[in-house]
Amino acid sequence: MKLLRCGQPGQERPALLDNNGVIRDLSAHITDLSGSVLSDGNLARIAQLDPKALPAIDAEVRIGPCVTDIGKIVCAGLNYADHAVESNSPIPEEPILFMKATSSICGPYDQVEIPRGAQKVDWEVELGVVIGKPGSYIAKADVMDHIAGYCVVNDVSERSYQMERGGQWVKGKSCDTFCPIGPWLVTKDEVADPHSLDLWLSVDGVRRQNGNTRTMIFDVPTLVSYISEFMSLQAGDVISTGTPPGVGMGIKPHPIYLRAGQTMELGITGLGIQRQKVVQAGA
Amino acid sequence: MKLLRCGQPGQERPALLDNNGVIRDLSAHITDLSGSVLSDGNLARIAQLDPKALPAIDAEVRIGPCVTDIGKIVCAGLNYADHAVESNSPIPEEPILFMKATSSICGPYDQVEIPRGAQKVDWEVELGVVIGKPGSYIAKADVMDHIAGYCVVNDVSERSYQMERGGQWVKGKSCDTFCPIGPWLVTKDEVADPHSLDLWLSVDGVRRQNGNTRTMIFDVPTLVSYISEFMSLQAGDVISTGTPPGVGMGIKPHPIYLRAGQTMELGITGLGIQRQKVVQAGA
Repeated sequence: MKLLRCGQPGQERPALLDNNGVIRDLSAHITDLSGSVLSDGNLARIAQLDPKALPAIDAEVRIGPCVTDIGKIVCAGLNYADHAVESNSPIPEEPILFMKATSSICGPYDQVEIPRGAQKVDWEVELGVVIGKPGSYIAKADVMDHIAGYCVVNDVSERSYQMERGGQWVKGKSCDTFCPIGPWLVTKDEVADPHSLDLWLSVDGVRRQNGNTRTMIFDVPTLVSYISEFMSLQAGDVISTGTPPGVGMGIKPHPIYLRAGQTMELGITGLGIQRQKVVQAGA
Repeated sequence: MKLLRCGQPGQERPALLDNNGVIRDLSAHITDLSGSVLSDGNLARIAQLDPKALPAIDAEVRIGPCVTDIGKIVCAGLNYADHAVESNSPIPEEPILFMKATSSICGPYDQVEIPRGAQKVDWEVELGVVIGKPGSYIAKADVMDHIAGYCVVNDVSERSYQMERGGQWVKGKSCDTFCPIGPWLVTKDEVADPHSLDLWLSVDGVRRQNGNTRTMIFDVPTLVSYISEFMSLQAGDVISTGTPPGVGMGIKPHPIYLRAGQTMELGITGLGIQRQKVVQAGA
């Protein structure tokens, strides 16, 4: 299933995308796409509904982030070998973790704001993993039981805030609009192998990132199991699994960063496409 | 006012502590201590209630974290000059920020768990600032308008996870039970000067931390204003403002870390006392 949330910010309603590309309203059946609604049992109940019996929603509706009430966004840094190389960073011996503030979340087609005075806003297409079942100390073999599905994440980053302003990456990862999520939460049954998906990102039509999840250093079971040793995971938490090569910071001979007026477009096989116009935050 | 939440985990109800030390049930008047309930206007309405008209709650009740639905916990690192020295760290030129996962939050008298295999669990008494009014790019002069009140925070930390496992502190700051908050949210009108409060922490009766918020490097208005340049703040967000000297990591000639069976006790002038027994996380 492809599940989504649509409507104005803060007023989104849950929906599904049927096989004909029609958005169907789920709000009579579930409160929202969050928390315990994401359990295997509840997703199975949604899957048994007849899409044609659900009200159609105007295709022009705004699409919001595909999950709400996200408790935390845990990200893996430098999780693609080629990206580590372009960042002049050694291949990590164990996963590098950082967090993005949940206040950075926005919809997949919302505007991305350049913070006041920021010079180094960069892009990162990433495979997002949505937790469906809580857990701590999750064994690798059990990880799939804890995953609800997958989505596209743009881990927008301000590189000077991230690395030149006092040492912890969160400062450059958490600005408002720096975490477009969606368009869809694609349930795990539709993703036969999360480690064979193409990822790509373009800026103004120029392809900047090309990758495939098969070149992850730490795969999805390893990452989720590892994170769960350091903190419990709750249903609705999002794990963003790192970005492939091609970020602006790594472009030779000089880094290229986003400017107001540009448009990012990014996608992952089977998980849909995001598109964000870049704007300057109000003074 | 001293506001608190009491009851079993996940079932806490909002309450206030009256001038005689009696806990009074607020659940007929507010949904909980979170979000927009923390606005100046709503807190003023609570202040107009007659405490004696509110049902008394058994003094033996469990006390939960004093705020719920916390969107993010933003912490300042090395924000006391003496603590920077004991950590062999330079005085920061601008605030160091990091986050703790909200899943680490627990009540002020709950048990603190040593994660499986962890060897370096340490204590940090801190002044917590609770946001009452949302904002971005908040001017220093306006910061007090955005604060609901203050509370004690124990920023429990696993030092090897924090600093020896891949570079980002969040890994050692986010374990479950690593963020006791409370007992009370003390509204700002009761804290004449947040920069003249004694902070202290003892382990098994041995005083380990002694400090005063007047030796903060970056004061509360500076910190809140600074953070709001990098991310918007929402009502119910908690900012933990750094710890004074005396953490286990800094003890000479050898660091001392927490062991199962020990008890931490910590407090801040006017904000109450926390007490946590340290236990081993289940195998």
